[in-house]
Amino acid sequence: MTIEEGHEILLYVNEKKSWIVTAEQGKKFHTHKGIVDLGEIVGKPYGTEVRTTLGLSMKAIPVDYLDHLERVSRRTQIIYPKDIAIITLLANVRPGSRVVECGTGSGSLTSYLAMHAQPDGIVFTYEMREEFQRVARRNLEKMGVIEKVVMKLRDINEGIDEKDVDAVVLDMATPWQVVGLAKDALKMGGRLVSFSPTINQVEKTVEEMRGKGFLAVKTLELLMRTYKVKVNETRPDMIMVGHTGYIVSGRKG
Amino acid sequence: MTIEEGHEILLYVNEKKSWIVTAEQGKKFHTHKGIVDLGEIVGKPYGTEVRTTLGLSMKAIPVDYLDHLERVSRRTQIIYPKDIAIITLLANVRPGSRVVECGTGSGSLTSYLAMHAQPDGIVFTYEMREEFQRVARRNLEKMGVIEKVVMKLRDINEGIDEKDVDAVVLDMATPWQVVGLAKDALKMGGRLVSFSPTINQVEKTVEEMRGKGFLAVKTLELLMRTYKVKVNETRPDMIMVGHTGYIVSGRKG
Amino acid sequence: MTIEEGHEILLYVNEKKSWIVTAEQGKKFHTHKGIVDLGEIVGKPYGTEVRTTLGLSMKAIPVDYLDHLERVSRRTQIIYPKDIAIITLLANVRPGSRVVECGTGSGSLTSYLAMHAQPDGIVFTYEMREEFQRVARRNLEKMGVIEKVVMKLRDINEGIDEKDVDAVVLDMATPWQVVGLAKDALKMGGRLVSFSPTINQVEKTVEEMRGKGFLAVKTLELLMRTYKVKVNETRPDMIMVGHTGYIVSGRKG
Amino acid sequence: MTIEEGHEILLYVNEKKSWIVTAEQGKKFHTHKGIVDLGEIVGKPYGTEVRTTLGLSMKAIPVDYLDHLERVSRRTQIIYPKDIAIITLLANVRPGSRVVECGTGSGSLTSYLAMHAQPDGIVFTYEMREEFQRVARRNLEKMGVIEKVVMKLRDINEGIDEKDVDAVVLDMATPWQVVGLAKDALKMGGRLVSFSPTINQVEKTVEEMRGKGFLAVKTLELLMRTYKVKVNETRPDMIMVGHTGYIVSGRKG
Repeated sequence: MTIEEGHEILLYVNEKKSWIVTAEQGKKFHTHKGIVDLGEIVGKPYGTEVRTTLGLSMKAIPVDYLDHLERVSRRTQIIYPKDIAIITLLANVRPGSRVVECGTGSGSLTSYLAMHAQPDGIVFTYEMREEFQRVARRNLEKMGVIEKVVMKLRDINEGIDEKDVDAVVLDMATPWQVVGLAKDALKMGGRLVSFSPTINQVEKTVEEMRGKGFLAVKTLELLMRTYKVKVNETRPDMIMVGHTGYIVSGRKG
Repeated sequence: MTIEEGHEILLYVNEKKSWIVTAEQGKKFHTHKGIVDLGEIVGKPYGTEVRTTLGLSMKAIPVDYLDHLERVSRRTQIIYPKDIAIITLLANVRPGSRVVECGTGSGSLTSYLAMHAQPDGIVFTYEMREEFQRVARRNLEKMGVIEKVVMKLRDINEGIDEKDVDAVVLDMATPWQVVGLAKDALKMGGRLVSFSPTINQVEKTVEEMRGKGFLAVKTLELLMRTYKVKVNETRPDMIMVGHTGYIVSGRKG
Repeated sequence: MTIEEGHEILLYVNEKKSWIVTAEQGKKFHTHKGIVDLGEIVGKPYGTEVRTTLGLSMKAIPVDYLDHLERVSRRTQIIYPKDIAIITLLANVRPGSRVVECGTGSGSLTSYLAMHAQPDGIVFTYEMREEFQRVARRNLEKMGVIEKVVMKLRDINEGIDEKDVDAVVLDMATPWQVVGLAKDALKMGGRLVSFSPTINQVEKTVEEMRGKGFLAVKTLELLMRTYKVKVNETRPDMIMVGHTGYIVSGRKG
Repeated sequence: MTIEEGHEILLYVNEKKSWIVTAEQGKKFHTHKGIVDLGEIVGKPYGTEVRTTLGLSMKAIPVDYLDHLERVSRRTQIIYPKDIAIITLLANVRPGSRVVECGTGSGSLTSYLAMHAQPDGIVFTYEMREEFQRVARRNLEKMGVIEKVVMKLRDINEGIDEKDVDAVVLDMATPWQVVGLAKDALKMGGRLVSFSPTINQVEKTVEEMRGKGFLAVKTLELLMRTYKVKVNETRPDMIMVGHTGYIVSGRKG
């Protein structure tokens, strides 16, 4: 595979440092350790070594969806990949799924849902704050899934337009207020999944889901532990994200 | 939606008890608390209440892929949904992905990869033990993804036939022995993800991946905590699965 | 050291199986794999190997306090050694401390507090249920700390008799009701530590402690992970105690 | 209780900010928000409110051992209170215990062992690095336990002078090398406890302990989760110490 004009490239230095750039004649990229000529990499094979003017060595490899997702998640710190992955599983989202999401936030969860619902599924995502929607739209475009997303600038409490959807995914401050609407929107047996940082939100949401007849209501959280692996020095990392949020799931019955 | 002859139905009693049955004239289903006439539910709407001869009440709801996945995972206890979800994310598997997997095991991870790679992607899965392959094939058929899976009864150490695949996923005793072959099979920038229960497997695999030039080599594990949620009695469950396995991921560079 | 008549002995088979017995002429001990003559071990050195009539091999070693504590904790499963240890630290209990405890329960926490408050400190322990107090008394006698404990059969809500105590330790269903009484009983700067299984108990207790002017109010919990360590097979144990309780601590100010 | 000249006082602002000072005529204490006259607090009751020249309010409460321990632990970050507490329990250290420790480090673990071994027990602590011993000595003096500690400036690999000790506690880079010496120093049934950050140290130590006939060899680690408790906003803290070290314990048999 050859790097062509206009390609997005990942310039990889090490586990902590890498950048997404575009290969383009006449453009330069400035790092803390010298400059890269982005025109010179056009025509080279992927995997090629690139050096800055100050000798910093990096690899030029293809950018994929995950590169974008990691960057969006890191920037907003709202929802982590570990949570995105399990929410998608618990919502049973897969090619063809019709999904309602609220709120859109930065669009990172939206993008993953849309990526996995394509090519014939779709995500309807509600967001009240225009600024967030604007940022999310840009992220979804960059990640190549905007065509599989319908963005709605509206308070979901005013109603969900869609019917017979496969899943409803909530990442909002007051999920319990939406449980009834979610039930109306879901097909029989469809999945409701809600992500919340506090235990009090969980209590209210679970209570409401039980009251509204949801089945198989479960609450869990995932703790991610990362490791420093090196012969004779292997150990978990000292600093850990101790909490992101609780995940409640259930099923319309 | 109406239950039709031949439909798979979930008979749901509570969070701990539910069964997958087939609606069929003339068939009975025996529970610990009486018998259900599976013919009588034909023609009823989904969500209908069903009662056994001894009065046990249950809901009849549609079966989906996740119902099957949970059952397969629970039975074999080899790989848990939390791990399946994050492995799929880290391998960047999505519609269209071409994935190599080893070993097939019970087919639960295979099914999730295939479900998310469809409609135009595919999973090539290697397994040495005929008995396992046979069980996995049955599971994949039941889950409706068998057409998106190529099953190979072979030791992956003898070689990987596929080239330029998007991802290689390993869930085997000696993943480090396959790192070189995986690199050859992967496209530039492609993802290798390996799941192992012991820290010693992790050390060998990470060492080998670094030696073979993989980029962004990371190790993590997920701990899942489940909760009993009830007003004024909310607490984590006392018994927890304390360990399933470590996940190593990296990228061909 | 020689085993003498009347000594308590630990007969140790392996990590999972060991018994506390008393060396005594004419007595036999029955195991699932044969009989041990407890008279024959009198006069032998500690560390000696003992064999049952069916050939099961065990070591005869001295019994210490920890052997008793582990047995009591395992039997009642109310409070685990990890929690006992941190509660004692957070309550700043050490030789000379005067401590109020409620409730006594099985006496395992009581015994640890008393063991560490001796020789000149003391534990005043409140318990409403006579049956529990009776069991606890027997345990405290067995562990050799009964003389450092004053057992009170009374509802602590009716009042704490002691004044100027160094610490108050609560392991009861409604700790928040006792916060005011605890404050009156504590010396300035003294420590209040409360152990509760549910998050709702924690919320009420923390709220009450803040309202009553306690300083440095903190909440934590400890998760204990045990490991199977074996060359090339090292891993955390699969089954784990996922939750015992939350610990709230603060200081009279 | 009245604050007297020369008393150590804790000036407490909030959970994150407090200082240990000495009440003394003619001395001032400078904070980021104004000055406190340390002479003016002499003669006031403990618990009194103190204000800086800029109006910052604080409480003056008695300093206890735990205040010192927390400060030493925070500064060196070598061993945390949660680990100190469980090590002391697993080593069965209590009034009267004779304990060997290596290395001394900053003295925080030493101080806790000595505090709990007093009045008639003692801690023999080995340290090779003079600088560390000097710092530790100062800490032990400040914490009031120096008389219960014998400090040895020596490589423990050259031999342990003590015999028939109740416990050996290791917090050093190569604990496995000392297992044999520890066995010789311990009384029959005595406890060996070792703290190590890497899993490789654990493997070697466990292997050696089994080889030398130690009984009940166990490995564990404690994860501490702290909580932000507030009505309707209760949740675990986001940043967590993900790893401190593994603890191996066993018993001479």
